Amino acid sequence: MAVYTDVAAEDLALFLAGYDIGELLSYKGIAEGVENSNFLVHTGRGYFILTLYERRVAEGDLPFFLALMEHLASRGITCPQPVKNRAGETLGRLAGRPAAMVTFLEGMWIRRPSALHCAALGEALARFHLAGADFPMRRENALSVAGWEVLYGACRERADEVQDGLKDLLARELAALEGAWPQGLPQGVIHADLFPDNVFFLSDKLSGLIDFYFACTDTLVYDVAICLNAWCFEPDHSYNVTKGRALLANYAKTRPLSPAEWEKLPLLSRGAALRFLLTRLVDWLNVPPGALVRPKDPIEYLRKLRFHQRVESVRDYGMTVP
Amino acid sequence: MAVYTDVAAEDLALFLAGYDIGELLSYKGIAEGVENSNFLVHTGRGYFILTLYERRVAEGDLPFFLALMEHLASRGITCPQPVKNRAGETLGRLAGRPAAMVTFLEGMWIRRPSALHCAALGEALARFHLAGADFPMRRENALSVAGWEVLYGACRERADEVQDGLKDLLARELAALEGAWPQGLPQGVIHADLFPDNVFFLSDKLSGLIDFYFACTDTLVYDVAICLNAWCFEPDHSYNVTKGRALLANYAKTRPLSPAEWEKLPLLSRGAALRFLLTRLVDWLNVPPGALVRPKDPIEYLRKLRFHQRVESVRDYGMTVP
Repeated sequence: MAVYTDVAAEDLALFLAGYDIGELLSYKGIAEGVENSNFLVHTGRGYFILTLYERRVAEGDLPFFLALMEHLASRGITCPQPVKNRAGETLGRLAGRPAAMVTFLEGMWIRRPSALHCAALGEALARFHLAGADFPMRRENALSVAGWEVLYGACRERADEVQDGLKDLLARELAALEGAWPQGLPQGVIHADLFPDNVFFLSDKLSGLIDFYFACTDTLVYDVAICLNAWCFEPDHSYNVTKGRALLANYAKTRPLSPAEWEKLPLLSRGAALRFLLTRLVDWLNVPPGALVRPKDPIEYLRKLRFHQRVESVRDYGMTVP
Repeated sequence: MAVYTDVAAEDLALFLAGYDIGELLSYKGIAEGVENSNFLVHTGRGYFILTLYERRVAEGDLPFFLALMEHLASRGITCPQPVKNRAGETLGRLAGRPAAMVTFLEGMWIRRPSALHCAALGEALARFHLAGADFPMRRENALSVAGWEVLYGACRERADEVQDGLKDLLARELAALEGAWPQGLPQGVIHADLFPDNVFFLSDKLSGLIDFYFACTDTLVYDVAICLNAWCFEPDHSYNVTKGRALLANYAKTRPLSPAEWEKLPLLSRGAALRFLLTRLVDWLNVPPGALVRPKDPIEYLRKLRFHQRVESVRDYGMTVP
C-alpha cells in the first residue's frame, strides 16, 4: 500500500507523448499494490493504470506478465489490458524504472466476501485456468515447494520470536511437504495470488481480475488451494464450510477436477498456507527502516496451516466427491 | 502520502446511498495528503474525492473548511466543492471518522515550478485573498507565532541531535520573532499551506487550488511569505530571485500591498521558515513505529530561515517597491 517512486507531471507528460491516448489531465498515486508503484492516470482518452515496477519484480519476467494479460483478455477474461505505445511496445521506462500502462478496470474488491462471492471466484478461477491453457510462455514458480527452503533459511533463526516452537514446526512441515508434494497433476498458468483484493465486483457480480505479478506455470489445483486459504476463513481464522463448498463446487462445474486432484487438495492447501506463512514471516522479521507498508500477520497463516494439517479429505472442506 | 483508514466497498456503497450521485463503480485510496485518508471515487455521476478526517484534524474545524470551499467556489476560485447529501449536509461519517465528498479537480501539481508557475501562483493567491474577504467565519492560526513556543517545547531537548546548536538558534529566533511580530496588517482567510502539491496546473495554466485544511484567519502577507518559502528556492536551497519577483509582482498586481506589508515581508518570511522548521523537526523526532509517511527534512527550512535572516528589504527578494 504505497507509492515508492514519485513521478513528476513533466516527466509523465513526456512519457505519454509516446502513446496515442490523448493528453494528460490528472494522475494520482494509488495506495494499492505492495510490490510496485501504481498511478491512476486520466488522459483525453479515458482512465488508465500506470505501473512502475520496483526492484522486487524481476525485469526479465515483465514480458511474461504483460503477454499473459493480453492473452487472457483475448480469451474473454476481464482483466487490465496493456496499452501499446506508438512503437507497438507495452513495456517502457519512466523515472528510472520499467513502466507499463494498462486499461483501468471498474469494480471494487470485497473486504468481507460471502459464499456468493466465493462461488463467483471459483468459476472465474476455473475460466482463468482454461483461458491460460494455450498460453505459450512459461515461468517457474519461485515461491513453490522448491523455494520454501530458501524462505525458511531467511527466517529460521528468529521464527521463535514470533511464536514459540515455530522454527521446529516449520522444519517438520517443510520435510513432510517436500517428500509428499505431488508431481504429474495438470499444470498451466496459475494466478498464485488471487486474494480478495485482486478480484473486482460490481453489484455482487465478479467484474474482473487484476495483479498478475505472481502468475507462473504450476499445478492448477494449487491455485485453488491458495484461494481456499485466502477466501474461506473467517476473521477469527475458522474455516467456513459453506464458502469452501461454494468455491470448490463452482470451480469444478467449469473445470472438473480429477480424483487425483481432489485427493491432493488437502496437501496442496497445507503447502499454500505454508507459502504465505513463510513469506509473511520473512517480511515480518525484516521491516526495513522507513517502510511504507505494514507487514501482514504471519500467525493468520499458521492457524490455517494447522487447520489443513487436520483435514483428512475434501469432505472436511465441504465437498462430497464421487 | 498514505491511506490510514481502509473503507470496505460495502460500507462505501451504503454511505453513497445517502447522496444523489449515482451508484459506486470503483474507488482507490490515493497516496496524497499527510493528515487525512483520501479516496478517488467513481460513481454513475462522475469522479469525486472522499476524505476521511483523521485525528490530526479537529472535528470542530471541519465546518470552517467545508464552508470556505463552498464560499471560494461561489466567488470564482477553482477548488474542490463539497457535495451535499440528500439531507443537505456536506459532513458525514464513515468508518468511524468524519467524512466528506468533494468534486474532483483535474490538473497536476508541478514538481519543478518555473518562474511562470510562480507568477500564476502569485496571482491565484491574491485572488484567493480577495475572494475570502467576505467569508464570515473565523479560525485562529494555531501554527502562528503564539503556537511556536509549544512546538519548540516538543523538540527542544533533541533539536541538537539533528544539527549542533539548533536548540539555541531556535530559542534566539523565537525570542526575536515574538518581540517583533507585526500587528495590525490586513487580515483575512489565508491558505497557510499553499505548497506546489496543493496547486494544480493544466498545460502550464493554473487550474485550481486544493487542501484547505490549514486555512485560518491571519495576516494576509504571511501567506505570501509561506509561498515565497515553498516556491522560490532551488533544490540546492538557494533563493531564486526571478521566481520570487514573479510571485510577488503578480500577487501585488492583483492585490496591491501597502508599504507596511512590504516592509514586514522579510520578518514574516523568517516566521514562515521557522514554522515549517519547527513542525518538520517535531515530526522528524517523533516518527511513530509503523508510520506510513516519511517525515520531511527539517534542515531545508533551517537553510531558508538563515537566508531570510540576512535579508534587509524586499529588494533582496527581487522586488523594487516605491
